Amino acid sequence: MGRWAPGATGRLVESALELYRERGFDQTTVAEIAARAGLTERTFFRHFADKREVLFAGSGALFEQVAAAVAAAPPGTTPFDAVAAGLDAAATVIGERHEFAEQRNAVIAANPALHERELSKLASLAAAMADALGARGVRASTAALTSETGMAVFKVAFDRWVADGTAGTLPELVRDAMDELRVVAAAD
Amino acid sequence: MGRWAPGATGRLVESALELYRERGFDQTTVAEIAARAGLTERTFFRHFADKREVLFAGSGALFEQVAAAVAAAPPGTTPFDAVAAGLDAAATVIGERHEFAEQRNAVIAANPALHERELSKLASLAAAMADALGARGVRASTAALTSETGMAVFKVAFDRWVADGTAGTLPELVRDAMDELRVVAAAD
Repeated sequence: MGRWAPGATGRLVESALELYRERGFDQTTVAEIAARAGLTERTFFRHFADKREVLFAGSGALFEQVAAAVAAAPPGTTPFDAVAAGLDAAATVIGERHEFAEQRNAVIAANPALHERELSKLASLAAAMADALGARGVRASTAALTSETGMAVFKVAFDRWVADGTAGTLPELVRDAMDELRVVAAAD
Repeated sequence: MGRWAPGATGRLVESALELYRERGFDQTTVAEIAARAGLTERTFFRHFADKREVLFAGSGALFEQVAAAVAAAPPGTTPFDAVAAGLDAAATVIGERHEFAEQRNAVIAANPALHERELSKLASLAAAMADALGARGVRASTAALTSETGMAVFKVAFDRWVADGTAGTLPELVRDAMDELRVVAAAD
């Protein structure tokens, strides 16, 4: 996939990210985003509920893909490895668009409210994985522990990938970080 | 330590939590909190910057204690065990007040903005631990991974403790969860 999604959605996203970085998220209006994309406000609202959704669109679909990957792990897969499969699914989707991720991340890092929103989305993703583990018969406390720590590993790998797109693909960096967790958590 | 801190602070916290639970956080005013505590608004503002600070006061001191515990781990301690020492310090402080934690948690869970704020504080605590590991010579990527996963373990243990105060002390539950992470992350 290229830098941006094709068509009107891609142009709106690109224009929004440019404006958020130039002026700040709070100072940007939907009218300005639409104008820079050469589209109308009405078109904007056919694609996004509001200007924040430009940054968080698609998270529902992502949650479903991640939960499906956890559910689809072969019987006998450990909870940790089932979570690894879920994170690999997330990394594959998110990892397709490095430049989008990088610019989006810069906007979110500059705005505490957006950053808090992002953390909340990641917490929801961990909860979705925990539910999928529960459906596999994993007890709730183990499911929570495995999902939360998996999500923590994902965040670290994502930060590495955003900071340096040449360090590896996102799925590779997530696998590396999961392996590293096994090492650092190993009893002495 | 008893249910609440002694004196005016304790009365203000108790009154605030009662009102937040009865009416909701957004619907409660500082004037109402002060009135229920039998104090003036001016007294409230001598203790707290605003009504949100009732829930988040003391986090700066907590961060310092946690960072100090990470720093004070004996030379040769693994990054994972140094983080465990930091989390034990946090658990010891927070674990002194179960009823406060329980009521505070109910208020935060009911209000998405407060919940996002709480996640942001936990992320800052993880960053403080990562900095303290860095000062011990741990490389940045390992420090981030260990701190973030440690924080994830702490969250899970905290949720267990809030849900059931008889399951163990908070430091015990944090140690149990750290041990469980070692087991679930162990390579097959």
